[in-house]
Amino acid sequence: MMGETMALTAAVAFAKDNGDRFVDELKALLRIPSVSTAPEHVGDVRRAAEFCAAELTRIGLEHVRLIETSTADRAGYPLVYADWLHIPGKPTVLCYGHYDVQPAEPLDEWKSPPFEPEIRGENIYARGAVDDKGQMWMHVKALEALMVAGGGTLPVNVRVILEGEEEVGGEGIAAFVREHGEQLKADVALVSDTELFADGLPTLCVGLRGMIYTEIEARGPRTDLHSGMYGGAAPNPFVALAQIIAKLKDEDGKILVPGLYEKVQKPTDDELKAWKALPFDEEHYRETEVGSTVLTGEPGFSVMERTWARPTLEVHGMPGGFIGAGAKTVIPAKATAKVSLRLVPNMTPAETFAQLKGFVESIRPKGIVIEVRMLHSGDPIVVSTDNEFVRAATEAMRTVFGKETVFVRGGGSIPIVGDFVRHLKIPTVMMGFGLPDDNLHAPNEKFHLPNFHRGIESIIRWLQAVGA
Amino acid sequence: MMGETMALTAAVAFAKDNGDRFVDELKALLRIPSVSTAPEHVGDVRRAAEFCAAELTRIGLEHVRLIETSTADRAGYPLVYADWLHIPGKPTVLCYGHYDVQPAEPLDEWKSPPFEPEIRGENIYARGAVDDKGQMWMHVKALEALMVAGGGTLPVNVRVILEGEEEVGGEGIAAFVREHGEQLKADVALVSDTELFADGLPTLCVGLRGMIYTEIEARGPRTDLHSGMYGGAAPNPFVALAQIIAKLKDEDGKILVPGLYEKVQKPTDDELKAWKALPFDEEHYRETEVGSTVLTGEPGFSVMERTWARPTLEVHGMPGGFIGAGAKTVIPAKATAKVSLRLVPNMTPAETFAQLKGFVESIRPKGIVIEVRMLHSGDPIVVSTDNEFVRAATEAMRTVFGKETVFVRGGGSIPIVGDFVRHLKIPTVMMGFGLPDDNLHAPNEKFHLPNFHRGIESIIRWLQAVGA
Repeated sequence: MMGETMALTAAVAFAKDNGDRFVDELKALLRIPSVSTAPEHVGDVRRAAEFCAAELTRIGLEHVRLIETSTADRAGYPLVYADWLHIPGKPTVLCYGHYDVQPAEPLDEWKSPPFEPEIRGENIYARGAVDDKGQMWMHVKALEALMVAGGGTLPVNVRVILEGEEEVGGEGIAAFVREHGEQLKADVALVSDTELFADGLPTLCVGLRGMIYTEIEARGPRTDLHSGMYGGAAPNPFVALAQIIAKLKDEDGKILVPGLYEKVQKPTDDELKAWKALPFDEEHYRETEVGSTVLTGEPGFSVMERTWARPTLEVHGMPGGFIGAGAKTVIPAKATAKVSLRLVPNMTPAETFAQLKGFVESIRPKGIVIEVRMLHSGDPIVVSTDNEFVRAATEAMRTVFGKETVFVRGGGSIPIVGDFVRHLKIPTVMMGFGLPDDNLHAPNEKFHLPNFHRGIESIIRWLQAVGA
Repeated sequence: MMGETMALTAAVAFAKDNGDRFVDELKALLRIPSVSTAPEHVGDVRRAAEFCAAELTRIGLEHVRLIETSTADRAGYPLVYADWLHIPGKPTVLCYGHYDVQPAEPLDEWKSPPFEPEIRGENIYARGAVDDKGQMWMHVKALEALMVAGGGTLPVNVRVILEGEEEVGGEGIAAFVREHGEQLKADVALVSDTELFADGLPTLCVGLRGMIYTEIEARGPRTDLHSGMYGGAAPNPFVALAQIIAKLKDEDGKILVPGLYEKVQKPTDDELKAWKALPFDEEHYRETEVGSTVLTGEPGFSVMERTWARPTLEVHGMPGGFIGAGAKTVIPAKATAKVSLRLVPNMTPAETFAQLKGFVESIRPKGIVIEVRMLHSGDPIVVSTDNEFVRAATEAMRTVFGKETVFVRGGGSIPIVGDFVRHLKIPTVMMGFGLPDDNLHAPNEKFHLPNFHRGIESIIRWLQAVGA
């Protein structure tokens, strides 16, 4: 025990002494535009994988390798695997992260270029700063600190698995977990892809919404037509999509797809009570995070309930037709709406998609041919707070932040957490260090550097505790 | 009179003998990608102007010059002017055309590249083949034939005015006509930017719909947001636009903007009767031109009435958000709908825009900030058939085609025709030689070459008759 305490102290000190170098390394990783949705970045995504693999090797992990993945319709991006498994009888932790990032568009809204990380104040700005390169790097750096402090040993068995397709649906890792789960055998997973409820407030995420991401394609005329000559006779796919979308969700934010709310499981009374106790100023949230004139969403539910525990439907873009500057008078042959739904516990992607598809087809406007397709999906998740790993995380964060840790849910989806439950039969500790205003998936994404360093220390303390 | 008949015969023969060369010249013009909506083609648009000016000079017109234009917010494309005014006492004809073209997108639907003209069968395929380079070239070639046949003289006074901004609203020529009308003093204008009702059927267009082209911009959150984290609290601009559009037009095609139909002037009973007599097979039209499962539009009106004499509303594209392949889970800060309305006689662009804007603002969804802006507009037009120029055109086409000429309207808009009425106080003969399936503004635009040659002969005969 004495040795463990000394090693812990040494690891924390090492992380503190090397903090600037850790940030420099992170910058190098952020400079790689590993946008997994964009065909032109194929080489960059792979380069990010190799960057991570090289560092895992350098810090002393073993069996470091790239695991190639592929799906039915395309070659995938590799998983990066590493392990250190030299303490039989101790638990094994599976550290998960992803090295791919969202597209950076719209580029003209960035104050500094998305792939030239810039530190302004205490924040580092870049695409992927917090989602998830910065948070993934905390894992790597915590392992490095423990390895140095332990003279080449870790206090716990560790496997690392990193993916490069989180932002495009994560099919590769899902298939690997499903088919080769024995290669990831562990007792608990650690995922740092969530956020603190408020700056300085240690937060564990114990629930996530699931999702289905779909495209609704509407086809009208065989070819693009001139709207002067054919307006009045030809069906317009954009007008049809507008009519459909207006029937999917009412102006209060209630989803109108029949049956959609039937299986929705309510949060427990205890959970609702705890959410009410969280420090939350709705007006401040509206002004600083959302920035709209008013908040929207289902009447009768709090913001937390609406974003964590209620299904929602959003439209992300409507490709097709003419979107350049100026005027083109076309009735396009087709138009598409990218529509996603967030799911909450007891809803399933398959059933929700079937409900959506059936309803959209039933309200198909005259003259329009409709195709509804699912691009990817993820199950909703609730993690029990009643296990030793969550308790150790609660304690580790309390120590680092000097405050009681709170439990929240997330409105987003991390499908891999559901895969870990289903195929590896292990719980996941979701210990994330982002902030609500970190601009995830948006221009000017950032990571608050003090949280990067607190995150490393929290993970060091948690890994030490899990191995104690 | 004998001399005139001989000159006419010689001009027609010259056009026949030189038909292949005329097509080669047209090909050269079509190779210039003079897309006036696209900033990257600025040099090409000007090159097309210079190409036309050089040819007008070569065939013997005088005072050939480029007239620079500009609007409040950008430099414009030049007008090309030329004249030949040596027969005092004879009428002056103003030949109008435009040398700019629509964007060629979507490129992957073209069977041959849009700016590499290709003849397949009896058609020439290229962007601008019929709209309007091919039709404008008929004017130039008719003038060349008459000039050669007349030994350096024409049978009538002629001014030529070509513009390079027809596809972006034609503000430059509109301003020039308004402010320098005396430089275009004429008795009648000739515009060839319309089509035959059916192949082989000589057709004069005596009415056009007007239009307003608008953008409806919806703003929700201050910045793009993650739909997982904020779905349920943040307003979504695409959903808002869908809700708005669904309230602008019902599923039968009726426009729901209050007051919009109030001023609509019905066609005369004679006109409706003539339209009923036109050779028109609705099922053939649906299948070969529109290609949709059914036709749409206001119940109780024929296709001709719906496309020529009723206002319509169309959505052309909805820029904003994420439109790439795959999934991006964003609630965009803003989205825009490109929405145009076609106007019929007695409606005015200003009043229609005010009605649209007022209604859209009145149905603005919660949390959304709306801006409605007009990009450009044109008046609806009806031309009297009771004048000598229209009668001469009727006769010229009857001679060339060997059939009685029919009178139709067009569903599209040619704003310059309204400007000629308002500022030059002259009627316009709309003698066009396109075909209904020429794919105007769409991929695989074409011009049926026999109609190119018939058009040249019709214009030769008409100019000769006007000067007789």
